[in-house]
Amino acid sequence: MDLTSQPHRRFNPLLDEWVLVSPHRAKRPWQGQQEKEQAEVRPAYDPTCYLCPGNTRTSGITNPKYEHQYVFDNDFAALLPEGEPGTYEEGGLLRAEAETGHCRVICFSPRHDLTLPEMPIAEIRRVVDVWTDEFRTLGADPNINYVQIFENKGFVMGCSNPHPHGQIWSERTVPDLPAKEARAQKAYFEKNGRTLLSDYLAIEEKTKTRFVVENDTWVVLVPFWAVWPFETLVLPRRAVQDLTQLNDQERDGLADILSQLTIKYDNLFEISFPYSAGFHQRPTDGQDYPEWHLHMHFLPPLLRSATVKKFMVGYELLANAQRDITAEQAAERLRALPAVHYKAAQA
Amino acid sequence: MDLTSQPHRRFNPLLDEWVLVSPHRAKRPWQGQQEKEQAEVRPAYDPTCYLCPGNTRTSGITNPKYEHQYVFDNDFAALLPEGEPGTYEEGGLLRAEAETGHCRVICFSPRHDLTLPEMPIAEIRRVVDVWTDEFRTLGADPNINYVQIFENKGFVMGCSNPHPHGQIWSERTVPDLPAKEARAQKAYFEKNGRTLLSDYLAIEEKTKTRFVVENDTWVVLVPFWAVWPFETLVLPRRAVQDLTQLNDQERDGLADILSQLTIKYDNLFEISFPYSAGFHQRPTDGQDYPEWHLHMHFLPPLLRSATVKKFMVGYELLANAQRDITAEQAAERLRALPAVHYKAAQA
Ligand SMILES: O=P(O)(O)O[C@H]1O[C@H](CO)[C@@H](O)[C@H](O)[C@H]1O
Ligand SMILES: O=P(O)(O)O[C@H]1O[C@H](CO)[C@@H](O)[C@H](O)[C@H]1O
Repeated sequence: MDLTSQPHRRFNPLLDEWVLVSPHRAKRPWQGQQEKEQAEVRPAYDPTCYLCPGNTRTSGITNPKYEHQYVFDNDFAALLPEGEPGTYEEGGLLRAEAETGHCRVICFSPRHDLTLPEMPIAEIRRVVDVWTDEFRTLGADPNINYVQIFENKGFVMGCSNPHPHGQIWSERTVPDLPAKEARAQKAYFEKNGRTLLSDYLAIEEKTKTRFVVENDTWVVLVPFWAVWPFETLVLPRRAVQDLTQLNDQERDGLADILSQLTIKYDNLFEISFPYSAGFHQRPTDGQDYPEWHLHMHFLPPLLRSATVKKFMVGYELLANAQRDITAEQAAERLRALPAVHYKAAQA
Repeated sequence: MDLTSQPHRRFNPLLDEWVLVSPHRAKRPWQGQQEKEQAEVRPAYDPTCYLCPGNTRTSGITNPKYEHQYVFDNDFAALLPEGEPGTYEEGGLLRAEAETGHCRVICFSPRHDLTLPEMPIAEIRRVVDVWTDEFRTLGADPNINYVQIFENKGFVMGCSNPHPHGQIWSERTVPDLPAKEARAQKAYFEKNGRTLLSDYLAIEEKTKTRFVVENDTWVVLVPFWAVWPFETLVLPRRAVQDLTQLNDQERDGLADILSQLTIKYDNLFEISFPYSAGFHQRPTDGQDYPEWHLHMHFLPPLLRSATVKKFMVGYELLANAQRDITAEQAAERLRALPAVHYKAAQA
């Protein structure tokens, strides 16, 4: 079967879902919406930014004059820690249950004008440590059974402030997508005695066709079943269940690989590359999850240029995920990009 | 349990998924991306539009001087009718299969400046007939087992041409979302002997809290488990498996209800309201599907105004669907809107 030119479906074993791949379609002309390019020159400090050190937020709280990272509870949190437990049911078809949790914001840097690819690796390593501490602390709460660490980067990804920051939502219930990945990983582990992602990595390692960057402890690849045009999967070589199980070398490795990857991303269209990204880790209900293999997904929307994104709309929202360029083409393009950030190269 | 102010999760029995509802969060200030408002004044005929009657498309094909609807094969189709069948497999984790099908485009009107809410009901009824004929003809092909009829409306929904049109993608395999809905409907029907959506409608009919518009044959409601801010479900009162089973009165009813609904939508922010919408119907493999209850989903992205949409990003892409206003609030707002299109009212 020809995977390079013929329309086909690929299976996502983590989610038990398919993606329709239309390799011949990348040539179609684009007459639709163009995204605004985000203003590139930002000051190191912006007096109107609610995330910059020393500024006062709309809630009236003043940020400390932080020098590295700063974590706080979101002033407009989707989840609240207090709340009556309870359920609602009608005719078996209307079902609801109360949910509680925390929404936290993590500023990656005091510098308003930086993002991960422009930060020194030592500072990214500090971000890794903060993520790890947050996961440990939040997860230790008996009312918190899942911790979702993520970043929305760029206006096109609904990010309302360009100051480099991510979010951490933690809650009582394991959300839908991690629950699905948990089921698939458990079934695989029970059958094979190894994690699904270890075996997947072993297959990819043979040809490295879909590899993007790698170091001693981590690999970034475009998964065979990628949906977003330049989607990647960030995988530790050693199967661990969560961030707290990474050793010192692996934490350094994560900082290094995130730097490598996000520099490639910025270099692709020579803009600050928008994406949503986040970790998937074991639930924090205190159980052991040997089948869970910590990983990170990067889901970037841009398709052809700095201003033309892939729209997940009619067919995608109602029927099936769909992509135009293949995972192999995307990996090859990312691999071929320089390892030095375009701004540093220009300077 | 308080569904009006406390964060909670609601269950979607059609997809076996949950949505996190954060009713208290609608008040958060918005400093992020604003959508461009689409130019409102369009000519009835645009010589540069590739969908207007008599114009030549990039493929070199000239459109007929059509007077009602016009259907043709997409010049840049994601699915192709010819193709070697075949599968690909590696280590049980890399799996692909060839896919074939058709992508068709349906112009709703020769008028470049109209959309469904501004079209006469008699013309919408003609659109219903074209959808029905396409479903019948495409579905009769032994290589086509599923037909997805949909519309992407507005630049914000990836629509590349404002000329009123929809699409029809048909293929060998039943795509992921209809396959999920099929499983849920089948399990329900086998257990209860009635369609899931008949029983759901009976529950909603008791209070009509989530009703938006209705007529003798159809109901539009905001489903209890809606994800998009003003998402609706268009339901025939009689359980039929597909469009070909609707009688004449029900087809008229569908045209009428689509007119009523899309006028409300345009009136919400007094703009041409963007959405993706589409039908879910039984597979076309020739089997009988008594559990299938034909319906249509409207998935509109706008949240607060003509220019602020709901972003389905980090938490939503990695963890779980999430919404701010409740289904009940959305239904109430839509219900309260005038039944006359704002442009007609202004004229
Ligand atoms: O076919 P169109 O209108 O050019 O394209 C649009 O609808 C398709 C079907 O939902 C999507 O795959 C595309 O991403 C979107 O831009
Ligand atoms: O919390 P923020 O950054 O204001 O909001 C953004 O991320 C959230 C989590 O993915 C989404 O629910 C919002 O739609 C999005 O605009």
